[in-house]
Amino acid sequence: MVFWIGALIFAVSTLMFAFIENRSHRRNMFNSHVFVSFFTAISYFVMALALATVSAENGQPIYWTRWLFYIGSCSILTLDIATIAKKPNVKKAEVAVFTALTMFCGFLASIIITVDRWWFFGLSTAAYIGMLYTLFKHSNDENSISSIMWFVMLTWSLFPVVWVLAPTGFGILAVDVEAILYLALDLVTKIGFGIYISKMRHYN
Amino acid sequence: MVFWIGALIFAVSTLMFAFIENRSHRRNMFNSHVFVSFFTAISYFVMALALATVSAENGQPIYWTRWLFYIGSCSILTLDIATIAKKPNVKKAEVAVFTALTMFCGFLASIIITVDRWWFFGLSTAAYIGMLYTLFKHSNDENSISSIMWFVMLTWSLFPVVWVLAPTGFGILAVDVEAILYLALDLVTKIGFGIYISKMRHYN
Amino acid sequence: MVFWIGALIFAVSTLMFAFIENRSHRRNMFNSHVFVSFFTAISYFVMALALATVSAENGQPIYWTRWLFYIGSCSILTLDIATIAKKPNVKKAEVAVFTALTMFCGFLASIIITVDRWWFFGLSTAAYIGMLYTLFKHSNDENSISSIMWFVMLTWSLFPVVWVLAPTGFGILAVDVEAILYLALDLVTKIGFGIYISKMRHYN
Repeated sequence: MVFWIGALIFAVSTLMFAFIENRSHRRNMFNSHVFVSFFTAISYFVMALALATVSAENGQPIYWTRWLFYIGSCSILTLDIATIAKKPNVKKAEVAVFTALTMFCGFLASIIITVDRWWFFGLSTAAYIGMLYTLFKHSNDENSISSIMWFVMLTWSLFPVVWVLAPTGFGILAVDVEAILYLALDLVTKIGFGIYISKMRHYN
Repeated sequence: MVFWIGALIFAVSTLMFAFIENRSHRRNMFNSHVFVSFFTAISYFVMALALATVSAENGQPIYWTRWLFYIGSCSILTLDIATIAKKPNVKKAEVAVFTALTMFCGFLASIIITVDRWWFFGLSTAAYIGMLYTLFKHSNDENSISSIMWFVMLTWSLFPVVWVLAPTGFGILAVDVEAILYLALDLVTKIGFGIYISKMRHYN
Repeated sequence: MVFWIGALIFAVSTLMFAFIENRSHRRNMFNSHVFVSFFTAISYFVMALALATVSAENGQPIYWTRWLFYIGSCSILTLDIATIAKKPNVKKAEVAVFTALTMFCGFLASIIITVDRWWFFGLSTAAYIGMLYTLFKHSNDENSISSIMWFVMLTWSLFPVVWVLAPTGFGILAVDVEAILYLALDLVTKIGFGIYISKMRHYN
């Protein structure tokens, strides 16, 4: 049910960003947020239909497909953030590859239900730290940029917290609470962030 | 049988394009058509050996791997078309990502045999429209370019028509008729198109 | 056991390259070797935990996941080599796509245990030849560059030799001998090569 709501919201936000970004006068910009929302919408449809899940040791389902779709959506998001932070192209590529590795190891950690999954949680965390390091190193001190990056670091870091508390980790949270928390985080980091960036670009 | 013929044709066309594009004096060009044919050849070998199929509700096999290989081959093709249409790099990237999403949702629609597959048919169609919109918007009106784009739009749009009529959709066409129709479309959109573009570039 | 050693070595080498490449004064360079080691470390963890294998006809396990990870690590490596050889960007892209196709067909050849696997061994070899041809064609004759490329060609070509002798091919080598040989080759082509390139760049 939460997944259907997510699918609907992100389908609508895909159209909204397509409208906003097409009205913009900047023709030479990659319309990141359209694609971020589109990837997320597909991800929610796949989870809503429960097409591929595994059972955690406590019997609750794990929707591991989420992490594969994050490879697409979150790499585009961090590419966008690296662009805003005026990183050179090679560093943008590094940030995107680190993001993809973070999510890929998150996928492995989610699909494995034995204790070995923590190896991949560790590798995912290492890639995440590499991504943040590359993003923050040598960055300009402009206020608008550093506030964006702090916002990203704080909200994105809540995803692994949910992961650890949910059936994927220690199973303290039930699967429906997990779904609501991830949805809230997706709304903030993907739609909220996208609207903020679009407005910022509009007034600059 | 049809698949073996396809594998043979695309193996030969890979070598043919390797020969044509190497003879060309333009060293700084991505040899798109070699890769398009190579991806397609691998795809036909996989289908010829029936390595991974699901059964449609009417019992006929669905060769869903085709759509995963189209992610590679068709993204390269639309990148090439966007290059010919002189799109800026970010728009080329958008066209390629839209194409990849079209084919990925086509893969999901094909591997799912319940009625839910139509959700992904819809998402695939949305990505396809996004791709065409990005390609046609702000395009130059040069005749050669617009005739190429119309040719692409018309021939590519027959793929979903076959999908809807074949076992993947309503099951009106048998699986062998489907295979022949897709092969014909692959020949026109991949080999025919490649030869046309190579000639056009040769004389320009 | 061999796989755990590999996982440990490549985890350490990831950190080592992160240290070396961050100390470097060249800010605008993609830190290839960090990612090559990271991909390889993940690959060895997956094999150490035997997360996904098939049984060869002689009953020995085939660790086919190795080849999927090579898509990432080896494409980055050949991109780096093409950069050193001062190839134009489109040729770098061709070299990377040929490498990815080599490894992808290697994956198909490894996961298939019937005689049909040799089709994909052939396709993989074709992609490998395409990669070498693109890399060597029109290359400068500077000594340092050509010695790097000969080193790459000779060491990389031993991978298919191991493949043919191991359970994936004729089964002459046992699976543990295979694992040691691949580890040795990974050490030479990924860590040894990375250290050599880092030193070369340091003194130039």
